[in-house]
Amino acid sequence: MLFLNKYAIQKIDQNIIQTAVEQAYRLVLSQNYNMPDRMHVADRQNILLLMPCFSEKFFATKLVSVFPEAQKHGQPAVNGVMVLSDNVSGQPLAVMDGAAVTAQRTGAVGGLGVKLLTAETVKTAGVLGAGVQGLSQARYLLFNRKIKTLYIYDLYEESAISMSRTLKKEYPNVEYVITEHSNQLVENSNVIIAATTSSKPLFEITPDVVMGKTFISIGSFRPDMQEFPNTVIENADDIFVDTMFAAKESGDIAIPLKNHVVTKDEIKEFAGLLEKNTYPETRTVFFKSVGMALFDLAVSSAIYQLAVENNIGQTLDF
Amino acid sequence: MLFLNKYAIQKIDQNIIQTAVEQAYRLVLSQNYNMPDRMHVADRQNILLLMPCFSEKFFATKLVSVFPEAQKHGQPAVNGVMVLSDNVSGQPLAVMDGAAVTAQRTGAVGGLGVKLLTAETVKTAGVLGAGVQGLSQARYLLFNRKIKTLYIYDLYEESAISMSRTLKKEYPNVEYVITEHSNQLVENSNVIIAATTSSKPLFEITPDVVMGKTFISIGSFRPDMQEFPNTVIENADDIFVDTMFAAKESGDIAIPLKNHVVTKDEIKEFAGLLEKNTYPETRTVFFKSVGMALFDLAVSSAIYQLAVENNIGQTLDF
Repeated sequence: MLFLNKYAIQKIDQNIIQTAVEQAYRLVLSQNYNMPDRMHVADRQNILLLMPCFSEKFFATKLVSVFPEAQKHGQPAVNGVMVLSDNVSGQPLAVMDGAAVTAQRTGAVGGLGVKLLTAETVKTAGVLGAGVQGLSQARYLLFNRKIKTLYIYDLYEESAISMSRTLKKEYPNVEYVITEHSNQLVENSNVIIAATTSSKPLFEITPDVVMGKTFISIGSFRPDMQEFPNTVIENADDIFVDTMFAAKESGDIAIPLKNHVVTKDEIKEFAGLLEKNTYPETRTVFFKSVGMALFDLAVSSAIYQLAVENNIGQTLDF
Repeated sequence: MLFLNKYAIQKIDQNIIQTAVEQAYRLVLSQNYNMPDRMHVADRQNILLLMPCFSEKFFATKLVSVFPEAQKHGQPAVNGVMVLSDNVSGQPLAVMDGAAVTAQRTGAVGGLGVKLLTAETVKTAGVLGAGVQGLSQARYLLFNRKIKTLYIYDLYEESAISMSRTLKKEYPNVEYVITEHSNQLVENSNVIIAATTSSKPLFEITPDVVMGKTFISIGSFRPDMQEFPNTVIENADDIFVDTMFAAKESGDIAIPLKNHVVTKDEIKEFAGLLEKNTYPETRTVFFKSVGMALFDLAVSSAIYQLAVENNIGQTLDF
């Protein structure tokens, strides 16, 4: 059995991760997987999510714990352990840092959105939320597009500054602009990615500013969370979700649906895009991802196979 | 983070494990724990069980996979991974071989049954089923009582012989008798422990043979599995279960209930015994354990604390 910590997982080539996410979407199309509803356990103010998924060769279970109070003691609120097993023999193959796998796969979900939904010539982009997920989104954005100016907004300016410093080392030719207001970021960006846990829309916007832009919401994972104002989804030519669960799970879809701003039949599955070769560049697009265990399975099995071939990770005498 | 493989877990002192199981029962009495229903996932002919449990200081999730076909390829059908975390900070603390934890804790559940339900002077005992669980039951039986003759029965005589050889190294003064028929084992033993997955009762018995004996059923974990004939439960003075779920989960309780051989109010929780100091030695007793995540939590946290104190296990750079 293999153990892969966050440093090992962070070093994996982004192309490997994004290709794995693309493979996950192809499994969605072929329906050649088994993903039970995740188990949601509450213990006092804390949450434990158990996310199993099966493909032909592998099965994986991600354990994610959310301890809101942990941050007060200087520890991460979100922790995860990923267990990957062989789906023929049943043997456990690897244990991985689940938070690192989550960050990588979520970044790649956004990155694949950028790749399939934006013009190749796009030059301006903005990331709302400069946490772990925001950083990962920015990395996959910059991996997919030659962005000239990247706008960053966070409630805490220091987080945004810290994120821009990290990115500058990896992508020194990009201009990083920390915006004081989120509205300013949205006005100046052609691609807007949000990775927050906000319960209220992060900005105000008029329909003319929405037009022609790509909006990607990564953060809102509960019905009471909403990152984008209704104006965005209302004016979008296309609305995509990574899984139809998003309509129930995220306020970014559930709230506009409830308010009759959109109807269910306007919402399409992102996987369908893989069957097309091109995407018209002038459309206004809204993409909401809530994530799914299938992404974790696809990414962790790709990481595992690469690790075995390249002797990455710590071998455990199971 | 710490990794503990099966060799490390097998070496842990039996007293530590059994005391941890006793602690688990005390938590049952105080209700100072949180154990959600376990998640049961089917994938083709295979099963994945996700068993989370929370105490004040720790939480643990056991992942157990059952791949019936794996045995054909010489691999174990049952595999497990145990993840132990800190329930204050949320941080993962240890990953353990879940099958080894299961074997230890299940052995200790039987062992505590022997300790609290049998006369200290008991000299004869029998174990039905010579698999991993049967071996563990025998170990904890011999740990708790000075048995003179241990009868072993298995469908495959070679398994019974192999188990007796293993035990002889650890308890050389015990006489080991492999019986050709299970009836013979039951007639000669004062304590009978079954650790099989049989769907039919393992032996036939008349009421006079039942009298004064202790019957412990460990194996039957599904409503269609039954180890002991109804005659046992029908003639028992006391019927104990480790958890009231047993009435639904195991055919050893569910079938006699359905056939009106016993009534629900005759069934008592084993935990209640901890409040008594002594147990009358002449009674006929039936104890059915189906196991629960709380045992895994109690045992894995005890193992973890011991491992930290004694530098046992492999340190993972999480």
